[in-house]
Amino acid sequence: MSSVSPLAPTEVPDLPAIEGVKLATAAAGIRYKGRTDVLLAVMDKGTAVAGVFTKSKCPSAPVDWCRAKLKSGQARALVVNSGNANAFTGKFGRQATAVTASLAAKAVGCSANEVFLASTGVIGEPLDASKFDGVLGTLAAQAAPADWMSAARAIMTTDTFPKVATVTVRLGKAKVTINGMAKGAGMIAPDMATMLAFVFTDAPISAGALQSLLKSGVEDTFNAVTIDGDTSTSDTLLAFATGAAAKAGAPKISRAGDPRLKAFAKAFRGLLADLAEQVARDGEGARKLVEIVVEGAVSKKSARRIAMSVANSPLVKTAIAGEDANWGRVVMAVGKAGEPADRDRLAISFNGIRVARSGARDPSYDEAEVSAAMKKPKIQIRIALGLGKGRDRVLTCDLTKEYVAINGDYRS
Amino acid sequence: MSSVSPLAPTEVPDLPAIEGVKLATAAAGIRYKGRTDVLLAVMDKGTAVAGVFTKSKCPSAPVDWCRAKLKSGQARALVVNSGNANAFTGKFGRQATAVTASLAAKAVGCSANEVFLASTGVIGEPLDASKFDGVLGTLAAQAAPADWMSAARAIMTTDTFPKVATVTVRLGKAKVTINGMAKGAGMIAPDMATMLAFVFTDAPISAGALQSLLKSGVEDTFNAVTIDGDTSTSDTLLAFATGAAAKAGAPKISRAGDPRLKAFAKAFRGLLADLAEQVARDGEGARKLVEIVVEGAVSKKSARRIAMSVANSPLVKTAIAGEDANWGRVVMAVGKAGEPADRDRLAISFNGIRVARSGARDPSYDEAEVSAAMKKPKIQIRIALGLGKGRDRVLTCDLTKEYVAINGDYRS
Repeated sequence: MSSVSPLAPTEVPDLPAIEGVKLATAAAGIRYKGRTDVLLAVMDKGTAVAGVFTKSKCPSAPVDWCRAKLKSGQARALVVNSGNANAFTGKFGRQATAVTASLAAKAVGCSANEVFLASTGVIGEPLDASKFDGVLGTLAAQAAPADWMSAARAIMTTDTFPKVATVTVRLGKAKVTINGMAKGAGMIAPDMATMLAFVFTDAPISAGALQSLLKSGVEDTFNAVTIDGDTSTSDTLLAFATGAAAKAGAPKISRAGDPRLKAFAKAFRGLLADLAEQVARDGEGARKLVEIVVEGAVSKKSARRIAMSVANSPLVKTAIAGEDANWGRVVMAVGKAGEPADRDRLAISFNGIRVARSGARDPSYDEAEVSAAMKKPKIQIRIALGLGKGRDRVLTCDLTKEYVAINGDYRS
Repeated sequence: MSSVSPLAPTEVPDLPAIEGVKLATAAAGIRYKGRTDVLLAVMDKGTAVAGVFTKSKCPSAPVDWCRAKLKSGQARALVVNSGNANAFTGKFGRQATAVTASLAAKAVGCSANEVFLASTGVIGEPLDASKFDGVLGTLAAQAAPADWMSAARAIMTTDTFPKVATVTVRLGKAKVTINGMAKGAGMIAPDMATMLAFVFTDAPISAGALQSLLKSGVEDTFNAVTIDGDTSTSDTLLAFATGAAAKAGAPKISRAGDPRLKAFAKAFRGLLADLAEQVARDGEGARKLVEIVVEGAVSKKSARRIAMSVANSPLVKTAIAGEDANWGRVVMAVGKAGEPADRDRLAISFNGIRVARSGARDPSYDEAEVSAAMKKPKIQIRIALGLGKGRDRVLTCDLTKEYVAINGDYRS
């Protein structure tokens, strides 16, 4: 059950240091034994921060904390723990965030208002913030520009591999770097951001511009991924820009629309897409990466709803687990989406092989050919509605017995 | 896998004959071997009919057929087949309905416009209507008032038990009977009716009054059941009233609001609720019957949406399969519903034991007590929002590895 997803990326990039960011991890024993479960990131003064969060009506205490602290746009520290989500923990949970931030502020030498928090793990269990006492001081002392992989590992729960990405891009005359990490696995149907993802850059970008980049960036990346349709209480995506590249000549950017930001914005979006795809590749129990492409819808919004209806259908997902090109279930999921769709214009392809068109099975349908295609680890379902120009794409994975085992056999 | 659901009713009622209705079943070899797969019901002249259907934008050919034929309000025959849903079968599918209705009309001696059709099974495979040739003639000759259980069995697909219900109620001075049957199993998230359900009565009720009863009756019965959130292309609920009880003195009813219909309307609704609960008890792979009660919502509609969000959450359903009172996942599902909810007022009970209140774990929480309660075959999750007077109730079942096996290991 804890073996690495067969969909894990075969190559893991080396993440360079980002000037102005130092990292350290520790095992605080919050829930897990024999592994790290706390990450402290320390940022230099002047670091801008932006964030997007779950749209859940029952957000976790750290989400409430981050939302309140984002207003200043300034960050000096990020504390992430795995094993306990500090969600639905009431007054005690709010106290735990205040205590954690205050301990981190003391350790780093900043204001608690500059400390950002994220927690992932079991919901409803009180988080004992006293476990951070001592640990955060040691972490602040140890923090170093290096080990991104250890950081990505410390924030994992049922993830089977750490998720990191990096990209270097020109901003003005300077080269700037963007590093990111994410954790996913289950309870993944992000509705503003995924469970936890953190992006760091040395580019000198204002908090407002960074917020715009994040907001537009998540729409077709993290928000276009679903594992099980279950939106977490803890979805958090934070981006930090230290601005250190200004010394190397990078221009200071205060608006997302600044033409000098074009290459950076593209690279930033690509990095979000990379991390989001890794989340889909590590869906609980996943054996197939599934891309749903909807085209010919009346609008992009309508295409998204149809794609999500297909991506979240247990019958479509179990069919893919069974390597069965069951387009009837795709028709069902299109039909239940509540969006304009005309059965008699619908065409459906699996991995480029058209299996249905004009409201019926494709005359050229060849079961053996389709069966062979379904054995691949990546399955693309393309749905052409023939109504308009709306197009969208969503990533998901199959639904296997392992998903049920992971989520029914223990309290994650 | 084909063993009977442990949630099957322990007592199966004896269904009496209904004057004006005759039944017969046969094995036409549409898909299954060694079992019946066609049901013919023949109704006397003057039988009123009403129906509600899937809201899918890609309905099956028989759904299209029934919708068109309902206008007259008159029925003489019902043909149901299992094994092939005749959905997404295009022009060929429309032809198959016309051929089947014409064969049935000839066999019964009525107009094709008085023949109602329903098909359940695989989607997208052409239905070979020529298989009904000969069979329907024989069935019409054999049709007898008796064997409701055989009828309920002939319409099953992955159902593990036939679903029938009966009630006798006074209408005026006469006793009238209502018999019903249903099939469910998977692809169950009715949105007007469930996959297939048929209700017969000898009460003299007009088509219009029957339609009103059906429309209001499904809302809290079939439409309040979900197995997997996947709404079928074939959902069909038809009700037939032969009017034979008029001879025994039952008054002719032409309006649903007629005060003389009160007891009947209540009994009718109870029968729909009985059949709907049986569908939940036979959800694919089900080991637990789950009732979600939401109260204190801002409206009934809001309570329904929250209840459905919980009932369709894979993480809630797998937790129940694992006999884990994981209220954190209930919080998550309430939060993602998009409806007004205040984490700090929320209270959650499992089988009457309150596990969470005021946004945190209940101080009296006793893991052993809750664990014992979770071992029961019926689990009630009660969610009190503390916002208003809106209340609703939805039935579902747990999500087990058997659901994945049933839907991933073969094309149903």
